[in-house]
Amino acid sequence: MRILVTGADGFLGRGLVNALAARNNRADKITLTDLGRSETCPDFMDFKPGDLGDPSFLDELTQSGFDLVFHLASIPGSRAEQDQALGHRVNLMAPLSLADRLAAGNAGTRFVFASSIAVYGDLASRTVNPDTPCHPQLTYGAHKLMTEIMLSDMTRRGALSTISIRFPGIVARPQSESGHGSAFMSQLFHRIRANEPFECPVPAESTCWWMSRDAAVGTLLHAAGLAATEGCIIQPPALRATVAEVVEAAMRVAGRRPLVSYGRNDALQRIFGSMPHLDASQAFSRGFRADANVDTLAQAAFSGV
Amino acid sequence: MRILVTGADGFLGRGLVNALAARNNRADKITLTDLGRSETCPDFMDFKPGDLGDPSFLDELTQSGFDLVFHLASIPGSRAEQDQALGHRVNLMAPLSLADRLAAGNAGTRFVFASSIAVYGDLASRTVNPDTPCHPQLTYGAHKLMTEIMLSDMTRRGALSTISIRFPGIVARPQSESGHGSAFMSQLFHRIRANEPFECPVPAESTCWWMSRDAAVGTLLHAAGLAATEGCIIQPPALRATVAEVVEAAMRVAGRRPLVSYGRNDALQRIFGSMPHLDASQAFSRGFRADANVDTLAQAAFSGV
Repeated sequence: MRILVTGADGFLGRGLVNALAARNNRADKITLTDLGRSETCPDFMDFKPGDLGDPSFLDELTQSGFDLVFHLASIPGSRAEQDQALGHRVNLMAPLSLADRLAAGNAGTRFVFASSIAVYGDLASRTVNPDTPCHPQLTYGAHKLMTEIMLSDMTRRGALSTISIRFPGIVARPQSESGHGSAFMSQLFHRIRANEPFECPVPAESTCWWMSRDAAVGTLLHAAGLAATEGCIIQPPALRATVAEVVEAAMRVAGRRPLVSYGRNDALQRIFGSMPHLDASQAFSRGFRADANVDTLAQAAFSGV
Repeated sequence: MRILVTGADGFLGRGLVNALAARNNRADKITLTDLGRSETCPDFMDFKPGDLGDPSFLDELTQSGFDLVFHLASIPGSRAEQDQALGHRVNLMAPLSLADRLAAGNAGTRFVFASSIAVYGDLASRTVNPDTPCHPQLTYGAHKLMTEIMLSDMTRRGALSTISIRFPGIVARPQSESGHGSAFMSQLFHRIRANEPFECPVPAESTCWWMSRDAAVGTLLHAAGLAATEGCIIQPPALRATVAEVVEAAMRVAGRRPLVSYGRNDALQRIFGSMPHLDASQAFSRGFRADANVDTLAQAAFSGV
């Protein structure tokens, strides 16, 4: 199977590459791409550095064709909000152009797109289900939603076999990564593990949707194997818990109890800390799984730190 | 006021140009654009022929800046479905590029976008309201929806003052216009007025949403004057009636009773003839109005024929 992973040097990308490497299926011909690569590329994978916003690079990258593509490359929300031109190029035009070229080469290509719960915007208190209306409050979410719509349309007309996954904040992202408004959800693991005080910007009772990188990688791989006809946009199950519950679990698992204080950043709480109930029964019945509980979430989050 | 009308030679565009001409406000500097122009341009308007998909034409067109833009240019649904590249260029890239250039020139520009009820896709029997989920079943509807999302985001971040209007099929389009799946909704007026037999492709009891060109032009002009802060996507009220009811009204108004027979085109009925109730109370309270009844609809439809 000819596999392409874009954004292969990102947090989620590195997790996926590790899982593909562990599978060690030498029948797979795996191509990775990103602007550059910070980690060694496994010897049976091919790393092609380049900019997906550059049409000639896209032509070269897609020339040989693929059976399965994981499109993870993305500019994070806060950064895309500040640099609109960059966000437009990477978060909207790159996936549209990549999908278009893949469709021209092989309509059977399976295209797994890392979308985001940022498509919803303000959710108020209603349970989220597949009919929840989307009113994105960041250009990042608007671009993800536009891409989902185009990819669903390509599946409808048989141009490509696509599936879009609406990921919540994935933990624990490296401390070096910036541009994510949800960074506090990862920082808490870093600080607790290092036994350092943590100033959480949102109140203790803020309710977030959590997903470990292991669960996110499992979600991507599961999505790759589903039939295209079953629906093109997936809200995978996520673990819903307050920040305080996750802080407590992280302390239990780490065996450390540094000082944790809570702030009142209303904007952050509104976007990331006011998540309602999630009815992911449809995704669950199709085999998608969330982290089991806050303790396994914390264990998984620490394992990637 | 500096006003731009794109698609000015289309059915809706000609109606809007006539209304602007009748207003005869010489303080307005009105620019029209389309690929070409079949009707004489009023002497106090400036007609600039060109292709909105051509970046250099867009640069030239937007150079002087505008206070108000009506973006009506569009490839109809059936034609866009057959020519995906053309639909992509005109129905998606042109509005995005135009809006971007206008935003760069003057963030206060009012941008009125002619969207379509094609954004909804299959509606089943649930009443349509502002929270109705959108699952477009044509690339045309997907492109309209993507454009709405981008324009809403531009309003959110203060880049442009946008409003998107989800128009139903507008009647009676000229017989020469092709590419609209809803063509039968206009043909019935032409046939009845000419006292010619009409073979309607959908059953008599098919329920459609109807709007005359007069009502559509009134909707555009009303939208132009609304404050940007009040919501960026509008489902205007439309007249809901069966094909048989409109056929009867058209016969009454025309004073002719040609033979009308009904077919069973399931695809057409599903998309255009199974429209559920419409809860447009939000738009109504903001001053939007539908045609009053099937008789006034028929009168208005005949007046444009």
